[in-house]
Amino acid sequence: MNEGAIGIFDSGVGGLTVLKQMLAHLPGERMIYLGDTARLPYGTKSRETVVRYSLRNAEFLLEHGVKCLVVACNTASALALDALACRFPVPVVGVIAPGAAKAALATRRQRVGVIGTVATVRSRAYETAIRSVRGTIEVYSAACPLFVPLAEEGWIEDDITLGVARRYLEPLARSGVDVLVLGCTHYPLLKTVIARVMGPNVLLVDSAEEVPAQVRRALPECPRSFDDVDGRQGDTAGLPGGRRDRTALRVYLTDCSPHFLELSRRILEIPPEDVEYVDVG
Amino acid sequence: MNEGAIGIFDSGVGGLTVLKQMLAHLPGERMIYLGDTARLPYGTKSRETVVRYSLRNAEFLLEHGVKCLVVACNTASALALDALACRFPVPVVGVIAPGAAKAALATRRQRVGVIGTVATVRSRAYETAIRSVRGTIEVYSAACPLFVPLAEEGWIEDDITLGVARRYLEPLARSGVDVLVLGCTHYPLLKTVIARVMGPNVLLVDSAEEVPAQVRRALPECPRSFDDVDGRQGDTAGLPGGRRDRTALRVYLTDCSPHFLELSRRILEIPPEDVEYVDVG
Repeated sequence: MNEGAIGIFDSGVGGLTVLKQMLAHLPGERMIYLGDTARLPYGTKSRETVVRYSLRNAEFLLEHGVKCLVVACNTASALALDALACRFPVPVVGVIAPGAAKAALATRRQRVGVIGTVATVRSRAYETAIRSVRGTIEVYSAACPLFVPLAEEGWIEDDITLGVARRYLEPLARSGVDVLVLGCTHYPLLKTVIARVMGPNVLLVDSAEEVPAQVRRALPECPRSFDDVDGRQGDTAGLPGGRRDRTALRVYLTDCSPHFLELSRRILEIPPEDVEYVDVG
Repeated sequence: MNEGAIGIFDSGVGGLTVLKQMLAHLPGERMIYLGDTARLPYGTKSRETVVRYSLRNAEFLLEHGVKCLVVACNTASALALDALACRFPVPVVGVIAPGAAKAALATRRQRVGVIGTVATVRSRAYETAIRSVRGTIEVYSAACPLFVPLAEEGWIEDDITLGVARRYLEPLARSGVDVLVLGCTHYPLLKTVIARVMGPNVLLVDSAEEVPAQVRRALPECPRSFDDVDGRQGDTAGLPGGRRDRTALRVYLTDCSPHFLELSRRILEIPPEDVEYVDVG
């Protein structure tokens, strides 16, 4: 058991929120993270291109002997999960199904909002997944292309970001949804502003939080989680980085990204010298 | 003479402003345009990655027999022009030198502002080029990472865009520059908002407008321009697309980009069926 590592890929930086959850909830696992920073973003690109890049990322991880693939990018999960699952002989876990399941079970009004990249929204992947849980749920979607660059610019709690959020989200707020899926791994960074526009009665679902449980189901031999061991809740904010065995995580990027290095150092205490650069073709 | 075509590449959409100028001012030339829409943007990425992508784009164009390379992207011009000029046996024209020369000659206060992507500003390519014309000119630079996504979102004359422009540009406006170089081919789309923040006494320099003259100098055998033939000025806005021989232009993209197709149809009257998709590796 636990012979191979868990491979996680993302178009770049956003997947760090998934990695954070994975490290916290599956502390006995070795992990390899690949951020395709040379070709980001995926969310503005076509299905064909996102599938092509996802296959290459997965091939890189499989060459490193991973026993499971986690697609930490919503766009790649929406467009490439089937292609990956067909092609590779390991379990493939995306972020759409876990987030959709949580939203479908949480809504009381049977109205769920979904925000994401243009590609994710166009794919209707969340809508399909939510309605496969309960077919009567109405799903309202909105693409928010400026949220990623605003988050990367660091304008987190900011009047301009609030203005952009109002423009994107007010139609959703008016539609009466009581759950909003943050369907892009960057969006939790803007949670405060999003919550301010949506109001206190709308639950924000961060798909990243649901991923470790899904991985555990996909890997029956997976050791019990940190939560299971000592019964504490899943809030990882206070988890000291020092508790992690550094050899248990390898990080690869396809391009040097100062933004990634800054976030990974701040959130996960990964020093820049632990990051390797690769060309996955 | 005039055996090969002129090859033009850009990270994607912005280079259409350069292509427009080229078609208008060098109507006797065949042109091949390559937009690397699968890997855009370049402006957030490292020098190594931008050079690698630029070399691949150039190789693709050289395989198509071009006699001259036009680098229509400011970031690629700033980071990769030397690498391209060393590697390939044809003249290589970027957008930095023409824009820098115009700005250096136009400033009366000897103070020039430059705005561009993070990578362009970090490279200091405009500063070097401007000061090589006149070493006493002071150059004030600012990166404006949100301008490209705002332009792509179509928020052109918009309160939010005005707020972003104020935040980026007010320090430049206060520094007393009388010329501002729009050092990214997307920025002319936001000219109205930029002019409003900078005020009526600041000349905005669009590097794209200066490129055809530079190409003519690089290709002595190049036929006289449209302007030369009938003496009219270089304003191409009214140039009917029908006047162009369609076989004289080939457009390749590395990914389907609805935004490119919409802009190229609207600005240059290129029908979507005239665009081919390629993988330049």
